[in-house]
Amino acid sequence: MPDNVKFADLDVGATIPAFSKGPITRTQLALFAGASGDHNPIHLDDEEARAGGLPGVIVHGMLMMAVLGQMLTAWVPQSRIRKFSNRFASMAVPGDTINCAGKVVGKRQENGENLVDLEIKAENQKGKILLSGAATVAVD
Amino acid sequence: MPDNVKFADLDVGATIPAFSKGPITRTQLALFAGASGDHNPIHLDDEEARAGGLPGVIVHGMLMMAVLGQMLTAWVPQSRIRKFSNRFASMAVPGDTINCAGKVVGKRQENGENLVDLEIKAENQKGKILLSGAATVAVD
Repeated sequence: MPDNVKFADLDVGATIPAFSKGPITRTQLALFAGASGDHNPIHLDDEEARAGGLPGVIVHGMLMMAVLGQMLTAWVPQSRIRKFSNRFASMAVPGDTINCAGKVVGKRQENGENLVDLEIKAENQKGKILLSGAATVAVD
Repeated sequence: MPDNVKFADLDVGATIPAFSKGPITRTQLALFAGASGDHNPIHLDDEEARAGGLPGVIVHGMLMMAVLGQMLTAWVPQSRIRKFSNRFASMAVPGDTINCAGKVVGKRQENGENLVDLEIKAENQKGKILLSGAATVAVD
């Protein structure tokens, strides 16, 4: 990822490059189960998910967060992310697309670093909020 | 995951069940790349990682967060997690084990829900902090 985002170029209210991933497939859920070791059947087996009161399998919340986080790592290197915080608003299901956006809400200096505070969100293809959150990145 | 955590049973200072995963393998990083669509070579290719100034491939920060999040979903259902927030402290590399812990730091009621605020952290096998964060869960 290019490391060329400059503090001086970011104004409060500026948007960062949007990021989208989808539609999310059951294969991705299976790969995520393998990667994370989270084999909870509510992400893999419709019958088990229904037995748990869900309409069918749901996307791992942490996979939704991973997509939202990729909006940041597609913009600045991972090593520049200082904080990443999310509220879980809604669940996503296979077939959903995760659309991510972020904007600058603050700029400050701390411990010799130039910090940019962002308001971030992930929505599905219908505009339903999945995650609403905040992130802080350090830039030159 | 059993949905039997009770608000009345949780006191400030109480620890939640610890959770550990590892050692993290390169296979997990490859699976995570497939699941998330994050094919950044710094997680997959030592030469590319070194060209980027790293000692070798590093674990996706979002995979570390996924492991820390599993501490929560092994304790309460995913649908009960309201907020999950982390500061990135250090990078992890293949071979590292991710040890997670959490404790209750607050209890409150909001919008008719019983909310429990937690302080959470992930460390590697040497006790080096990888993530320090906070989470809020809603319990009966």
